[in-house]
Amino acid sequence: MRTVCRADRAVRGRRTDSRGAHRPRVASVATMVRIALAQVDPCVGDVDANADLVLEWATRAAREGADLVLFPEMVLTGYPIEDLALRDSFARAADGALRRVVDGLAAQGLGDLVVVLGTLGRSTRPGLEGRPTNRAVVVRGGEVVATYDKHHLPNYGVFDEYRIFVPGDAPCVVEVGPDHARRRAGVVVCEDIWVDGGPLPPMGDADLLLVLNGSPYEEGKVGVRQELAARRAAEAGAAVAYVNLVGGQDDLVFDGGSFVVGADGTLLARAPQFVEHLLLWDLPDDGTAPARGRVAPVLEPDEEVYRAVVTGLAGYVRKNGFRSVVLGLSGGIDSALVAAMAADAIGGENVVGVSMPSRHSSEHSEDDAADLAKRLGLDYRVQPIEPMVQAFHGELDLPGVAGENLQARVRGMILMGISNVEGHLVLATGNKSELAVGYSTIYGDAVGGFAPIKDVDKSRVWALARWRNEAAIAAGDIPPIPESSITKPPSAELAPGQKDTDSLPPYHLLDQVLDAYVEHAEGRDELLARGFDPEVVDRVLALVDRAEWKRRQYPPGPKVTALAFGRDRRLPVTNRWREPKGDPR
Amino acid sequence: MRTVCRADRAVRGRRTDSRGAHRPRVASVATMVRIALAQVDPCVGDVDANADLVLEWATRAAREGADLVLFPEMVLTGYPIEDLALRDSFARAADGALRRVVDGLAAQGLGDLVVVLGTLGRSTRPGLEGRPTNRAVVVRGGEVVATYDKHHLPNYGVFDEYRIFVPGDAPCVVEVGPDHARRRAGVVVCEDIWVDGGPLPPMGDADLLLVLNGSPYEEGKVGVRQELAARRAAEAGAAVAYVNLVGGQDDLVFDGGSFVVGADGTLLARAPQFVEHLLLWDLPDDGTAPARGRVAPVLEPDEEVYRAVVTGLAGYVRKNGFRSVVLGLSGGIDSALVAAMAADAIGGENVVGVSMPSRHSSEHSEDDAADLAKRLGLDYRVQPIEPMVQAFHGELDLPGVAGENLQARVRGMILMGISNVEGHLVLATGNKSELAVGYSTIYGDAVGGFAPIKDVDKSRVWALARWRNEAAIAAGDIPPIPESSITKPPSAELAPGQKDTDSLPPYHLLDQVLDAYVEHAEGRDELLARGFDPEVVDRVLALVDRAEWKRRQYPPGPKVTALAFGRDRRLPVTNRWREPKGDPR
Repeated sequence: MRTVCRADRAVRGRRTDSRGAHRPRVASVATMVRIALAQVDPCVGDVDANADLVLEWATRAAREGADLVLFPEMVLTGYPIEDLALRDSFARAADGALRRVVDGLAAQGLGDLVVVLGTLGRSTRPGLEGRPTNRAVVVRGGEVVATYDKHHLPNYGVFDEYRIFVPGDAPCVVEVGPDHARRRAGVVVCEDIWVDGGPLPPMGDADLLLVLNGSPYEEGKVGVRQELAARRAAEAGAAVAYVNLVGGQDDLVFDGGSFVVGADGTLLARAPQFVEHLLLWDLPDDGTAPARGRVAPVLEPDEEVYRAVVTGLAGYVRKNGFRSVVLGLSGGIDSALVAAMAADAIGGENVVGVSMPSRHSSEHSEDDAADLAKRLGLDYRVQPIEPMVQAFHGELDLPGVAGENLQARVRGMILMGISNVEGHLVLATGNKSELAVGYSTIYGDAVGGFAPIKDVDKSRVWALARWRNEAAIAAGDIPPIPESSITKPPSAELAPGQKDTDSLPPYHLLDQVLDAYVEHAEGRDELLARGFDPEVVDRVLALVDRAEWKRRQYPPGPKVTALAFGRDRRLPVTNRWREPKGDPR
Repeated sequence: MRTVCRADRAVRGRRTDSRGAHRPRVASVATMVRIALAQVDPCVGDVDANADLVLEWATRAAREGADLVLFPEMVLTGYPIEDLALRDSFARAADGALRRVVDGLAAQGLGDLVVVLGTLGRSTRPGLEGRPTNRAVVVRGGEVVATYDKHHLPNYGVFDEYRIFVPGDAPCVVEVGPDHARRRAGVVVCEDIWVDGGPLPPMGDADLLLVLNGSPYEEGKVGVRQELAARRAAEAGAAVAYVNLVGGQDDLVFDGGSFVVGADGTLLARAPQFVEHLLLWDLPDDGTAPARGRVAPVLEPDEEVYRAVVTGLAGYVRKNGFRSVVLGLSGGIDSALVAAMAADAIGGENVVGVSMPSRHSSEHSEDDAADLAKRLGLDYRVQPIEPMVQAFHGELDLPGVAGENLQARVRGMILMGISNVEGHLVLATGNKSELAVGYSTIYGDAVGGFAPIKDVDKSRVWALARWRNEAAIAAGDIPPIPESSITKPPSAELAPGQKDTDSLPPYHLLDQVLDAYVEHAEGRDELLARGFDPEVVDRVLALVDRAEWKRRQYPPGPKVTALAFGRDRRLPVTNRWREPKGDPR
């Protein structure tokens, strides 16, 4: 395999003009080039299964009459692979998976189909020979006819590509379509179009730009991607076919939403988000107006975030070999929302909900938990914590907050015990507001293998719960979340009459301050300039800064905002920096 | 401030040839240039305190007759600062700290002293204006006379500098010494000398190369650094003055060990490791043989690793505002070693050791724990776990491993409870072998804010314990660790008659496999080629791969090997990659 793009081979590699057996095309579109975008959900590390996934979807594309099928970034290895990229044995396995695809296409009589896919490559650049690259590969006629190594390696936010890859420096343009209607397609990978002056084909050099992506979801990103693609389409004078991964991978969710924009920036086709999908689009003859394909509607923001979390959760469960989850049900809104999401992800019958009342639990809490479990069809259990709590109090003096933490930790131990015996994945139900200010008990309510709403702030938790209920009503179903879980004042119920607002500012205010400080990384001065009360600002900032150690030990959960805790926001634990009061500019 | 090096200003900035008041120099060395390497321990984020630390050590250097004092990489901000580099408010504070140094030197009459130090800079390169840089600053005569931005940004292993900095591209050479004996000194930062063809001054251009470092400890690194510096000295035809940070910062330990090598590669002076130190060395006149300064001995490997851990632990405790620690004492070797390290770090009287016997604890375990506590002068307590364990068993059915985990989790809860009430930092006592294969209970023995021996494998744990005892005997002290804790077969004592070897290969074998698979990232084939039993290899690799989720939630602890778990080895949790059996090459 060579890294240099071999467009000439791609042309010569086209042996005949004959059509595949399953190619139902009408004569009037015979000179169009049919493009298929295969929005699929591979699993990191599962290279042979990913190769089979590619073969399966390539076959589907051929059946739909496609001349070319485009797969996402690193579809053969899964994405992101982190330091697996540095292992020789893994690189050899990726090579083997590519052979499996090439041979499998030939064996299935799909030699004429052009297949473009992403995988782990090895650089051939002088001085960088053999080092890993993020590669696009073009397969046709039973061989690799061109390769392209990603030029721009993102190394910000959640990305560490400069750590594991070396960049390519050669462009790639391949020819596609029948001999009498050849069209030229440029190939680039994800970040390459996010950088101004990136490696686009010069104006007039290509009719189509193929972009392989592993673009993680965050709210509002669909619009940003389309605007960007429209800009690059105008720069290259070519339509842009943008294919994205779909599915959950640790703390990332890929939302799919693959699309095609014309050279004039018009949206011509779009796949739905959060599902595997084969999007078809016909590149017309020169001078012919491009056909508009199917354009899936954009989701409303609350639905989009909700489905992103469900996708992340479902992916984590399935790809890690779990079939069920367990979580504590307090009767409060956070655990109710997570339970509803879990039921949507894997079915209510695979969700164990445990009510763990204490002497401080109100009656409505138990009722609301039971009501929720019934609505969702959960495997519902009640396990009072008092006997264990009293056993600790009998041996140790644990007053105040220590006693509150004790209750949360007994609950965590119960969930872990059930998980150890029955094999369920434990879900932590903390939200982003709590995680930000450390309003949780480490080894207590923070236990779990996955934390679905860790990037959803409390204000959004309410909004998602309301959206989910409304969606159920619109569909004629029973709303899953009891109304009183949504409307009652939040309380940890670890002390008599306790309310969250005893310790924290009201959530609508807290979440605004957090949005400015955490997601927009504003300093104290900027916060005050926005009109926030200095006392609130100082209190919130101090809480956030001091909670870093807790966040380090928190389970992973899906990023849905522009800046999530975790790999997106990396700060030392040992860190005496505090936003100065009276910052000297 | 400008990024371009202004060596001409450095010359003009030298106003007089008069000496500082505290400069006790003899006439015979008047034309030598005295260099001081200030090996200091700043704290990340504590910019004003770090500025004061620089002023204090600059004053000491002047008192010792130094013409130039060299501080480590990013001494003003602490290192590594991670995403703090991206905050405007932090960058402004770093600027303020630099002003504090410049003004403070002038106010103390140290205007003639050349001070070279590291801090956060802002690029002036076209297209990169204002973006953060890893900067060296040269101060003299009450002003910044030159700046240098690190060219090579490490982005592998524990380093993420490409994420937060942009590189510089201008060299920096400044003049130092009295007017009649001016010498030229090049300035570079850490990674710049690790890259072949890095920005060294051309042969003959400088008499001295000043290297500012934040080089984390790992075993054997002292020798590697010195060989490298000797090579660069030969290439530049100049002596190399290498100053390093000292102290703990989260999962890194800086060992100091600053040194000077002559142009011929000879080691001329070396500071001791793991302590703050001012190393003095006189750059002789041209043509004069360089003087040999004080050369601190290199530590024996076990002592070096032991002291690295103690330094990391002491730094974490102090810089995070703790005064004491608490840990469980099982009578086994891991907790005994950690207790001894903690006593060495902060004094035995500040260490709470809790024996938490169960029905499965052997009598010798309690005796050994008590004996250890007495030898170390710990605050020793005994808290049986049976009442809490029975309370759980009375409510839940937790057989087998679930029951074993329960015991470990009750112990974790006891330690957290004591910590919550009394304010101690909880130490996790797991070693690297256990962490590798997941032989620990999450939320049980894995609880803690810091895990001192997480990068020390079991074989090394025994070696360090033996070394510590022998060192005590050599010093005429009581050996801190009971002999039976060292010699008895390892057991978690969570089930009757349990031994670690029931679940794991013998540690001497396990540790060899782990060394090859984890630290040297070898594949299964390489392991088999080394002659390991395939069954052992497959078992160990499967355990390591499946334990990633546990490691993610483990507390930080000091890196002492070439490859530590954590930021040094980044792998997905969701990861179906398993080393193939019969890897096709």
